[in-house]
Amino acid sequence: MFTLVIYDISDDGLRLKISETCKNYGLMRIQKSAFLGRQTNSLRKELMAKLRMIMAEEGTERDNIQIFTLDSFSYNSRVIIGTFKLVEEKGVLVYV
Amino acid sequence: MFTLVIYDISDDGLRLKISETCKNYGLMRIQKSAFLGRQTNSLRKELMAKLRMIMAEEGTERDNIQIFTLDSFSYNSRVIIGTFKLVEEKGVLVYV
Repeated sequence: MFTLVIYDISDDGLRLKISETCKNYGLMRIQKSAFLGRQTNSLRKELMAKLRMIMAEEGTERDNIQIFTLDSFSYNSRVIIGTFKLVEEKGVLVYV
Repeated sequence: MFTLVIYDISDDGLRLKISETCKNYGLMRIQKSAFLGRQTNSLRKELMAKLRMIMAEEGTERDNIQIFTLDSFSYNSRVIIGTFKLVEEKGVLVYV
């Protein structure tokens, strides 16, 4: 199964913490505030627990994370409109 | 089937156009830059064609839209972390 994480986080520090956590759990950035990747169910549960913990400590009522478990059908349905490619170089987002 | 649209759009005007289009095609805003809703396959195709047209005309290399077709399993898997509720009142986003 695949995990899709999308988030609305206003604080820069908290947003960085969320994105680092997604990366540490093997997900790949697909947009500024979206991560996607294949995960075991147990790793996904761990990631969710970690994100809940971070949000309980630092989240405000304006912050929101949504997590989808995608099966192969939904994962493979992904359509991308746009010409750019977003990559990370030394931790910095670069459009190439 | 359900449609999930997530986008990275830098220009305010273009971003508004994208969100209005998603709304016009029956999707509901679930985050600042994410829409979700049940759609027939033909309506989803129409929406994609419309978004492609808008992006061809006004998109830059920094803009990016990603569209997922979610089956019931993936749709029902959605987990929300965060306490706020985002609603639209008279076209304005309000956190309640």
